[in-house]
Amino acid sequence: MRRINAKRVLVGEPLDTARLGETLLPKRLALPIFCSDPLSSVAYATEEILLTLALGGVALLHLAWYAAAAIVFLLVVVVASYRQTCHAYPGGGGAYVVSAENLGQSAALTAASALLVDYVLTVAVSVVSGVAAITSAVPALNDHQVALSVAFVVLLTLMNLRGVRESGRVFAVPTYGFVLVIYLMFAVAAVRIGTGDTIRAESATLPITADGTYTGIALVLLAMRAFASGCTALTGVEAISNGVPAFREPKSRNAATTLAAMGALAVTMFMGITVLAMVYEVHVAADPTQLGLPRGTPMSTALAQIGRATFGDLHVLFYLLQAVTAGVLVLAANTAFNGFPMLASILARDRYAPRQLYNRGDRLVYSNGIVLLALAAIALIVAFDAQLTRLIQLYIIGVFVSFTLSQAGMVRHWRRELASPATPREERIHIHRRLAINAVGATLTALVLVIVLITKFTHGAWLVCIAMPVLFLGMKGVRRHYDTVTRQVAVPAGAHPRKPARHHVLVLVSSVHAPTLKALGYAQALHPDTLTAVSVAADEDDMRRLSETWADHAPGISLKVLHSPYREVVGPVMAHIQELAAADGTDVLSVVIPEYVVGHWWEQPLHNQNALRLKTRLLFTPGVAVIDVPYLLESAKAGEGDGVGMPVR
Amino acid sequence: MRRINAKRVLVGEPLDTARLGETLLPKRLALPIFCSDPLSSVAYATEEILLTLALGGVALLHLAWYAAAAIVFLLVVVVASYRQTCHAYPGGGGAYVVSAENLGQSAALTAASALLVDYVLTVAVSVVSGVAAITSAVPALNDHQVALSVAFVVLLTLMNLRGVRESGRVFAVPTYGFVLVIYLMFAVAAVRIGTGDTIRAESATLPITADGTYTGIALVLLAMRAFASGCTALTGVEAISNGVPAFREPKSRNAATTLAAMGALAVTMFMGITVLAMVYEVHVAADPTQLGLPRGTPMSTALAQIGRATFGDLHVLFYLLQAVTAGVLVLAANTAFNGFPMLASILARDRYAPRQLYNRGDRLVYSNGIVLLALAAIALIVAFDAQLTRLIQLYIIGVFVSFTLSQAGMVRHWRRELASPATPREERIHIHRRLAINAVGATLTALVLVIVLITKFTHGAWLVCIAMPVLFLGMKGVRRHYDTVTRQVAVPAGAHPRKPARHHVLVLVSSVHAPTLKALGYAQALHPDTLTAVSVAADEDDMRRLSETWADHAPGISLKVLHSPYREVVGPVMAHIQELAAADGTDVLSVVIPEYVVGHWWEQPLHNQNALRLKTRLLFTPGVAVIDVPYLLESAKAGEGDGVGMPVR
Repeated sequence: MRRINAKRVLVGEPLDTARLGETLLPKRLALPIFCSDPLSSVAYATEEILLTLALGGVALLHLAWYAAAAIVFLLVVVVASYRQTCHAYPGGGGAYVVSAENLGQSAALTAASALLVDYVLTVAVSVVSGVAAITSAVPALNDHQVALSVAFVVLLTLMNLRGVRESGRVFAVPTYGFVLVIYLMFAVAAVRIGTGDTIRAESATLPITADGTYTGIALVLLAMRAFASGCTALTGVEAISNGVPAFREPKSRNAATTLAAMGALAVTMFMGITVLAMVYEVHVAADPTQLGLPRGTPMSTALAQIGRATFGDLHVLFYLLQAVTAGVLVLAANTAFNGFPMLASILARDRYAPRQLYNRGDRLVYSNGIVLLALAAIALIVAFDAQLTRLIQLYIIGVFVSFTLSQAGMVRHWRRELASPATPREERIHIHRRLAINAVGATLTALVLVIVLITKFTHGAWLVCIAMPVLFLGMKGVRRHYDTVTRQVAVPAGAHPRKPARHHVLVLVSSVHAPTLKALGYAQALHPDTLTAVSVAADEDDMRRLSETWADHAPGISLKVLHSPYREVVGPVMAHIQELAAADGTDVLSVVIPEYVVGHWWEQPLHNQNALRLKTRLLFTPGVAVIDVPYLLESAKAGEGDGVGMPVR
Repeated sequence: MRRINAKRVLVGEPLDTARLGETLLPKRLALPIFCSDPLSSVAYATEEILLTLALGGVALLHLAWYAAAAIVFLLVVVVASYRQTCHAYPGGGGAYVVSAENLGQSAALTAASALLVDYVLTVAVSVVSGVAAITSAVPALNDHQVALSVAFVVLLTLMNLRGVRESGRVFAVPTYGFVLVIYLMFAVAAVRIGTGDTIRAESATLPITADGTYTGIALVLLAMRAFASGCTALTGVEAISNGVPAFREPKSRNAATTLAAMGALAVTMFMGITVLAMVYEVHVAADPTQLGLPRGTPMSTALAQIGRATFGDLHVLFYLLQAVTAGVLVLAANTAFNGFPMLASILARDRYAPRQLYNRGDRLVYSNGIVLLALAAIALIVAFDAQLTRLIQLYIIGVFVSFTLSQAGMVRHWRRELASPATPREERIHIHRRLAINAVGATLTALVLVIVLITKFTHGAWLVCIAMPVLFLGMKGVRRHYDTVTRQVAVPAGAHPRKPARHHVLVLVSSVHAPTLKALGYAQALHPDTLTAVSVAADEDDMRRLSETWADHAPGISLKVLHSPYREVVGPVMAHIQELAAADGTDVLSVVIPEYVVGHWWEQPLHNQNALRLKTRLLFTPGVAVIDVPYLLESAKAGEGDGVGMPVR
């Protein structure tokens, strides 16, 4: 009965659960899978700082040095913090798990809401900015950004539905390629500057018109907003701590090592790009008119300008830079494709999300979660018209909510360990160190969260401030529903099935033909306490005709004919059944419905839909069971083999 | 359990079948119901003749006299022919019935296809041209013709769903009003012309640019096309013969009388309007530039011009004329709302159409047919952008196909009567007369059909020439399907229900809770020969946990646990069931599915949809019956009263 279908071609043959172990990741594959997000964000973090400062004119651009320094410091602290998490939670220490264990249900759900929102934004922002790298190199594609972005999301979805291992291989090339080309660019720049070249970006000579004067509080706020924008460089750092179980043994140590390597790469790349942007005097602005250019002029990204200036006549290297940048950005979305479904599965396990999200699909990945994430990201991309500057405003709040909760949870975790008398003395010194690291992390990320909220709220972040509580309440509602159901269906220990006192069977009859006789024979085999046939007649003629045929074919079974003045079937039958069902509280009534089964979809509307409507109504009638006795017409039997003949006639 | 709902407010309370007699029509109500179509078509028939002749320039307009004369003659012949049908078929002598009885199945289905297409076109054309009468008086509504037309169709649908009697009353006023105002207009014109006034239409002074020179064959074809266009005046004549059973006794005589009255009214009104149009020198054209007006100039209908010229300063009467014209035209669609559902019901009775069209709805009208007609008409109106001149090209073919078949059938009918020795001698003379009338009618309408086909085919009528065969084949297909089903489910006389040899019961178990225990208790009450529980486990842990609980709660029932390596439920369960079902050809296997029932739609996606998918698959498995044992959660019980407690625990 297995059919060859499009799904198999696109996502591959099903995998056995026993093969789950085979999909564990070595460090060299784990790095590209979990780190394409934090690494790739250096491609736009510097630009976001400059874009914000440009509002204050050329004079304020030097503030980028301070913002970048603060971000590098923050990045080091956060990486150090999360390394502690990898050690403390070898089973996977995402913000949700850590908050749940240490801070309670509400903190955990807050973290979960933040993470879910951010995974969706990671996909949207990364893919859109990858497409921007492409259009920086190929301006002709400028008008197709939405279509390209959606196409990339679909591509990622299909790759992820194929399973984690193959993903790692496919994603290693662009991630490592991106790192290498960036370092190559640094080397070329160093050599050229060292040999006395003066390199300037194409936009260095453009003026920047300030959109106002920024002094006092306004200046501080602008600087803080520039810093907040640059904090996009930190997104995705938590992915590794969440994915510890996907590492090979020793899981915790491998994960912590990978995290440190990622941190080193991210810090050096971010610093290098920022230095070059400042040295080359890259001028960028959200609106071309601010740079004295006509409205609608296509503009290159800051990184593209740096690349073009550095590589000069080596056009091949510039295009390679854009290609790997686009590649790593589109694949950065993959971090979310790993994280979101895993978190959704944990939430489903804890019954905060529909249980369809719990099970792995037949390629051992969480198929439903993957599809859900892709749909949400596509909706965002289309709604925001694939405009990076608008999407990025929504992006960082969730990240820092989960950072803060996660680090605060770790602080509580270590304090609890210290309080436990079981903790050996020689461990305590290490725990004090870990506690200190996480405390610093929690304090700093909380501070940044406040800064982000203040500076981004009116620029679109309010949307996230609505989405998160909605998700929060939704998850609580789902849990409440499941709890209610569990309570309602629970049975005490030792409870046994109990037979109903009496069993009444009702066979619905439209006319006397083979399906009816089959259903009647079946009904007799149930050995019911009472057996009645019920039919509906619109007029006297009908009624008489039916009674005559009945006497011919089923004289032993009593037939009740209901008069239906409105020529309707469902209503009178339901009324009759409800009357019977209400008569006795310990009996059970089975309603037998003989049904034609036709084999073609177009044959379906040629038959009355009364059976379907009746079945739906009967589901809601207490004390009633519904029995379908299908009668396969020849068209329905095609391709089913010989099957079993039913004993009719 | 009866709920107050929107349907009741819109279409009224259900009526009892016994009240069907009450809805029989007196002649004074039958006339507006069945004749708004033929009467109202005089509002545009003259204009259609002039529009066509205008292509040849002013010089050819005098040909309208000949075309109109031919049409009047044709109208008299057709009315005379159909009066014979009323007498011969008191049970309703539509083209379908007459063709079926006298010319065989294929002719009958051809007639039916033609009639179905034409009913739809009647609604579309009448409503659109009614809206044109409104926009002639209120040019501001010119841009809303599609919306207005659709709104009128919806209004008609609701009125018809309320039932035939109320329809008659509502429709009498505009129909009689239209007739009276037209005669009033004739009287005013006669008095003014008699007293020496010279009346000219507003367009009399406009030049008409011919779109080519018409001589020889081209001239003949143009004249024929003008005649064919004017034949729209004949549409709807057959409605009365179709609706004889709706008349009061003596049905046939009352129907024939009404038909004669309608003929007299239609002929005099058509003649009068044509005479006035010629005398007033009304100039019309499909395209304003042909009249030397700028493109897009809103133009009045010919009837509106005649009214404006005749009533002069009596503006009130002009607006009254437009109002009743619009009223009668929109209501003309009502002829189709009576005819289409009745024909569809007859076709369904003969099993050429889905049986849902057979039954009357709860207001004693054929609700499904009414809705179907409305949907088709709305589709046409939207597709043709509510442009009368384009819709009218499709209109007349179907009419004349059914006229011809119907009259030819009547000829055969009378010849058969003559051939029968049972026919009394004194009747024979009358039958000879009737035969002659119908023979003339058949010949003439066949001739007109050829003319219409030749002159209209390339102007859009080809669409009808495709639609009719499609309907024809569709109806044959439906009949073939029903015949096949009937053959497959037929039972020989005296066949009795036979119990299956053995009854095996399988209870599907997801985990041990109240719905499962309830289903097990129920299954025991079926006294099966074998009773097994079946569950699916993804891994060893699952399996062990389930077996332990099972031993606790249902030690007496054997549990079969299926291993599902792909974590899938439906596949393994189906495989297991098919294996069991295939084992023995005379046994029957019941699959018991315990089901939660939740009360809110949003709760549904929180539960796995496995039950539904299983049930669908099982319907197609021979030898299997499906038993739903619903377990109502509290949310599903709300509003259902106390109901019956099921014996669980």
